[in-house]
Amino acid sequence: MILDKIQKENDIKNLSKEEIEDLRYEIREFLIQTISKTGGHLASNLGVVELTMALHLSFDLPKDKIIWDVGHQSYTHKILTGRKDSFDTLRTHGGLSGFPKRKESACDAFDTGHSSTSISAGLGLAEARDILGEDYHVVSVIGDGSMTGGLAFEALNNASHLKSNFIIVLNDNEMSISENVGGLNHYLSNFRTADAYRGLKDDVVQSLNKIPGGPKMVRQIRKAKNSVKQMFVPGMLFEQMGVIYLGPVDGYNIADMCRVFRDAKRVDGPVLVHVLTRKGMGYEPAERHPARFHGTDPFDVMTGLPEHKREKSHYTDVFSTVMKKMGEREPKLVAITAAMETGTGLKRFRLAYPKRFFDVGIAEGHAVTFAAGLAQAGLKPLFAVYSSFLQRAYDEILHDVCIQNLPVVFAIDRAGIVGSDGETHQGIYDISYLSSIPNMTVMAPKNKWELSDMLKYAIAYDGPIAVRYPKGEAYDGLREYRAAICYGQSELLHAGSKIALFALGSMVKTAEQVAKQLASHGYDPTIINARFAMPFDQDALRHLADTHDLVVTMEENIRSGGMGEHISDFVQREKLQIQVLPIAIEDGYVEHGKIAQLLDELGLSAEKITKRILEEL
Amino acid sequence: MILDKIQKENDIKNLSKEEIEDLRYEIREFLIQTISKTGGHLASNLGVVELTMALHLSFDLPKDKIIWDVGHQSYTHKILTGRKDSFDTLRTHGGLSGFPKRKESACDAFDTGHSSTSISAGLGLAEARDILGEDYHVVSVIGDGSMTGGLAFEALNNASHLKSNFIIVLNDNEMSISENVGGLNHYLSNFRTADAYRGLKDDVVQSLNKIPGGPKMVRQIRKAKNSVKQMFVPGMLFEQMGVIYLGPVDGYNIADMCRVFRDAKRVDGPVLVHVLTRKGMGYEPAERHPARFHGTDPFDVMTGLPEHKREKSHYTDVFSTVMKKMGEREPKLVAITAAMETGTGLKRFRLAYPKRFFDVGIAEGHAVTFAAGLAQAGLKPLFAVYSSFLQRAYDEILHDVCIQNLPVVFAIDRAGIVGSDGETHQGIYDISYLSSIPNMTVMAPKNKWELSDMLKYAIAYDGPIAVRYPKGEAYDGLREYRAAICYGQSELLHAGSKIALFALGSMVKTAEQVAKQLASHGYDPTIINARFAMPFDQDALRHLADTHDLVVTMEENIRSGGMGEHISDFVQREKLQIQVLPIAIEDGYVEHGKIAQLLDELGLSAEKITKRILEEL
Repeated sequence: MILDKIQKENDIKNLSKEEIEDLRYEIREFLIQTISKTGGHLASNLGVVELTMALHLSFDLPKDKIIWDVGHQSYTHKILTGRKDSFDTLRTHGGLSGFPKRKESACDAFDTGHSSTSISAGLGLAEARDILGEDYHVVSVIGDGSMTGGLAFEALNNASHLKSNFIIVLNDNEMSISENVGGLNHYLSNFRTADAYRGLKDDVVQSLNKIPGGPKMVRQIRKAKNSVKQMFVPGMLFEQMGVIYLGPVDGYNIADMCRVFRDAKRVDGPVLVHVLTRKGMGYEPAERHPARFHGTDPFDVMTGLPEHKREKSHYTDVFSTVMKKMGEREPKLVAITAAMETGTGLKRFRLAYPKRFFDVGIAEGHAVTFAAGLAQAGLKPLFAVYSSFLQRAYDEILHDVCIQNLPVVFAIDRAGIVGSDGETHQGIYDISYLSSIPNMTVMAPKNKWELSDMLKYAIAYDGPIAVRYPKGEAYDGLREYRAAICYGQSELLHAGSKIALFALGSMVKTAEQVAKQLASHGYDPTIINARFAMPFDQDALRHLADTHDLVVTMEENIRSGGMGEHISDFVQREKLQIQVLPIAIEDGYVEHGKIAQLLDELGLSAEKITKRILEEL
Repeated sequence: MILDKIQKENDIKNLSKEEIEDLRYEIREFLIQTISKTGGHLASNLGVVELTMALHLSFDLPKDKIIWDVGHQSYTHKILTGRKDSFDTLRTHGGLSGFPKRKESACDAFDTGHSSTSISAGLGLAEARDILGEDYHVVSVIGDGSMTGGLAFEALNNASHLKSNFIIVLNDNEMSISENVGGLNHYLSNFRTADAYRGLKDDVVQSLNKIPGGPKMVRQIRKAKNSVKQMFVPGMLFEQMGVIYLGPVDGYNIADMCRVFRDAKRVDGPVLVHVLTRKGMGYEPAERHPARFHGTDPFDVMTGLPEHKREKSHYTDVFSTVMKKMGEREPKLVAITAAMETGTGLKRFRLAYPKRFFDVGIAEGHAVTFAAGLAQAGLKPLFAVYSSFLQRAYDEILHDVCIQNLPVVFAIDRAGIVGSDGETHQGIYDISYLSSIPNMTVMAPKNKWELSDMLKYAIAYDGPIAVRYPKGEAYDGLREYRAAICYGQSELLHAGSKIALFALGSMVKTAEQVAKQLASHGYDPTIINARFAMPFDQDALRHLADTHDLVVTMEENIRSGGMGEHISDFVQREKLQIQVLPIAIEDGYVEHGKIAQLLDELGLSAEKITKRILEEL
């Protein structure tokens, strides 16, 4: 195996031309075999095998700095920097991260996870290099999907004044996770057709034909060589922004890419190298279904089918079903996603109501302000988004939705611990940042039926409102408890004594388990489904204070700014005679691993919570 | 006066040509006279008098919707919609807001305040109009400064697929508050030269000259009429994004603008009208110093000089001085602003160390991730920013700075009540959203010397750290208390008994006054300068619990998620035997008015706090 010759960075440079040819197949085979067992990001990694090899052949690591935007496409980079043998631990607790991590290797120049950060960070490195009088290359590798994020544009707008070398590699595969959207995508797609001339045709010819002498110019440009026309036309958008454009170049021709990178290194100033790739390249099921193979569970290599069939429906599936139904019932309901149609479960809504569905690209800020506009004009917009990504729209939520108190629904998926994606993706901050925004209401359901009820409640509610629900299987217990949702009110599940478990969302199921374990110690705790994190149920707490000794607040969120802290403060302020034990994630960042394992480590398993309660008593 | 004929929207349409000519001068005179007395945004409003008149002549309000990006340039719009007589109450408590407000007029289509939101919101209105089968025009008026914000780009990228009319007016004055920056500005500046042909020359000719037949094309384009060339070249960046471009048009020629708007209304799809204006137009001091006349205090119309000379230095001045000094002492210190060089006080730093200063445009997200890159590469970046605008970078702070625990300093000006700008600009959320981000440290100084000490401490500190300080005069009392800053430790200012005032930042001065008032009731409260909001001084609180009955936490921030809530929770969790009375801004939005008046209304004046303490005892 050629792959065995790669023990550390730059080893690839010692290979012969033929070995390099073989290596690309070996890496691709290794990725498919490994990820079929561990799960992970497949389609994006298969797309950039050759691009990564060309980068490693062209640059000197770790001296030169490569920043991988988003970072889930860095597997080949990890292989080429001596981490191949750790791949059996990929995304498991204590094992290899699925994203670049500075603590994992000196060749990982900057930690990433969220989209569109790489040009900003790379520009920072480049400016620092110049100020400190150092000498290395900085390369930001960014997908065309990530380019739809405003942060990338802000950075591009700032790059133009740089006088020294800074290389932006545009990894153009026409996709974010789903198909890419928007004017920029349309612009880029002009270069991708077999007839490279189309780039000119679509954008320029119509204008040219209108001016005197224009048609003649068009004929002349038509006659020029393809490569020359591309030099002139395709990159103009970037050149207009002050960034030199090189490309497009075939992302599967290593020699061509190396040649362009050699040219790029000579440019004094920012230069964008446009590389055309294809998600899933070389593995047919992934080429056909890149969204399904974006982040995949273990699968059968022969068929591409998942190894474990879903037995129970996930919260996302429940959301999907409710949205389909509510779309019919409520003609003013419109749905928005930020490039996550499949992940958020909005595909069925899109198919049923295409005119009321908006995929805005990786642009959470725009999604929220756009929703505010829709709401102001009389519609009922729902933004379906992962908890971690909604962080990007904090100001838009406060400034555009909540000050005007507009009826926008936030359906927050992946709220709580998300597992194998790790620190950058944990959805454990939303209660804190949302509940301190005036006018915002935050709910979380105990089970699948309550998710349905809460979504309907939220869609009917006249103000900003969020429903947060976790990744994974929807809890189908407690179906007999289905009291109507009343604003700010909790739900009593069991009336016991002494101890009250005041649990939010996913923690209600855990509270049931805790109650059972406490029963074996002779306790009979009251169980309350909090339902609302903000405003939480003050009356229920006052009542508990009269009747119980201890209230245990339980939430899958960090402690600081979370529901428990608000309640603890409330009890203190009202001088209620009850002790509060707040169970939440103590402040910190949570690395990758299995969800149940992480929750246990964080003290959020039923066993750990029971233990803490017994200590408290 | 022609102006008296304008009693409500659309009245302008009944004026004769000559009256309209006169009206522009009357409005300009009215603005200068009024703002010279009330203070307010002058330069931007003088710039768009004619543009606003042309919009009101071309559209039908309130049926058609005009969204003013940022919104501080909406004074003429307010005059033309019947609000002239309220201008003596401009930006005062209960008076006319300095920004568009839906509750003020049906002609204000969407509330604004922060930059770059108008295209997103406008697109929302346009899509909703189409879905609901309604029929009106939507116009978003956005400055070239606001276009540097990524949100505007995200929206532009999404506009392209719209099939119905949506008009974006680019109010191009080459400025944000300071001079505009970046590649986009460079691109736009090509259209502004007297020789309109330069737009072609700078961006295209070099490329054209390289291709066979190119020089001939250049000659042909040179020969074409100016207007035709402009049709072809200037808007290409926008056309490439899928937005029709019209312009540029002279922002002081009302007839020309009306003509272009008429054309724009006929376009099926998004259309950008490029209008050239000039900040401060028609008032010479404002034309010469647009940044000084951005938001101005009352001034003398004849000289342009402020009516009240600053007697004491402001916190911003102190910051400015310290930065100048620290720049010399610490060669790795670099400073970043998001288009607020003057407002944040970084101008002196820029003049002294131009290579270590970065104005990134109105792009707070980029500023923070860029700072993370600078820090990762070995520099010590400081981002000077207003509290309210830092909200726009919440995710970048968490994801790019704090997960990697990078040493970035946040100098947060305008923290607390800012007064006359109102709801959208109050800096009363930063403690809440920052203190729930792991690894973040938040400080606030009691007086001007402590601001200096804290900035030095922050620059030396090896991790993410924020110093927040309020708008206005720097407190110069308590200079004898200047104990060295120790991480997480408070400062004892007076050892009393029974009651402890635990005050943060601006509230320390108030605590002194409260102590005096309590003294007249026979109490002798302990006064503690909290210094750190996160982590707050736990040891001090434990000690207080042993020796006092009541601790009053005092902060200029909302209660939810603020320091008081964290402390209240801590006391509860540690079962400390002390009552906590948290003084903060109860959740809500705070409208415009004088700072002292607002603080009193919010219960944060010494009198109100004293009263609450006496009630509590």
